[in-house]
Amino acid sequence: MRRNDRLITHSESFSILENGQFGTLSTASCDGEPYGVPLNYCLIDNCIYFHCALEGRKINNIAANPKVSFCVVGRTEVLPDKFSTKYESCIVQGFAYESFGEEKQKALEGIVRKYSVDFASEGFEFIEKYKDKTRVFKITIETISGKARR
Amino acid sequence: MRRNDRLITHSESFSILENGQFGTLSTASCDGEPYGVPLNYCLIDNCIYFHCALEGRKINNIAANPKVSFCVVGRTEVLPDKFSTKYESCIVQGFAYESFGEEKQKALEGIVRKYSVDFASEGFEFIEKYKDKTRVFKITIETISGKARR
Repeated sequence: MRRNDRLITHSESFSILENGQFGTLSTASCDGEPYGVPLNYCLIDNCIYFHCALEGRKINNIAANPKVSFCVVGRTEVLPDKFSTKYESCIVQGFAYESFGEEKQKALEGIVRKYSVDFASEGFEFIEKYKDKTRVFKITIETISGKARR
Repeated sequence: MRRNDRLITHSESFSILENGQFGTLSTASCDGEPYGVPLNYCLIDNCIYFHCALEGRKINNIAANPKVSFCVVGRTEVLPDKFSTKYESCIVQGFAYESFGEEKQKALEGIVRKYSVDFASEGFEFIEKYKDKTRVFKITIETISGKARR
């Protein structure tokens, strides 16, 4: 994030995060191996929430090391004659913690509202049916920065 | 990567990597803080190449810890009534090393060919003009895996 002419404001960065369809979560194992994986997510009270299966590499990494990075890319368009690309992206640095109980429920409902707004009541039934087979994690936003060429 | 029904073959994963417009590079600092950043890239002889400025956080991370992860997402489409998303993605685990000389030149030309195929000769002039202000890194592909819901 060196090119100051490509920096965008905090609220523009937040807007990319709010409007993103998916983000890439980066975690690192206890021996420092990074692992990036794309995820759907929602934003509630300035925290990122995602759900996942009961087991997996990202969960193992988070258990050993809760530091994470979360990157969302908005619109992109290659500019062949400029040897450049129009893009907008934001990068969050934060910590991931598992959510339980009411917070987990709110997060799953938030995900249904984001991706399935016209099917909310069926979505809430879906949550009831599968929530014990799902884990939910919250990412706190310690820093957020953004870049764009528009 | 637990859901076996979503796993795709090695060659399908490679095809997502070959056709991706950008990928997210995950690095980790020496104290284990992950950092994910979107990048343009090209593929030459089964290695990923990207270019960047002379300084920056990802370069500092790589200097301290060459282990990286590189994630490319292909087509995605939210399926609101299924509470799911069609997607295809691949994840590479590997090591990043700086490229110099002929290898650096080949990588920059590969990037021009990928993104600016109709402006190749102007692109090669662009490389001559800016290559001393650019660093190039190679990512070896130690493992590649892919997932899809289509």
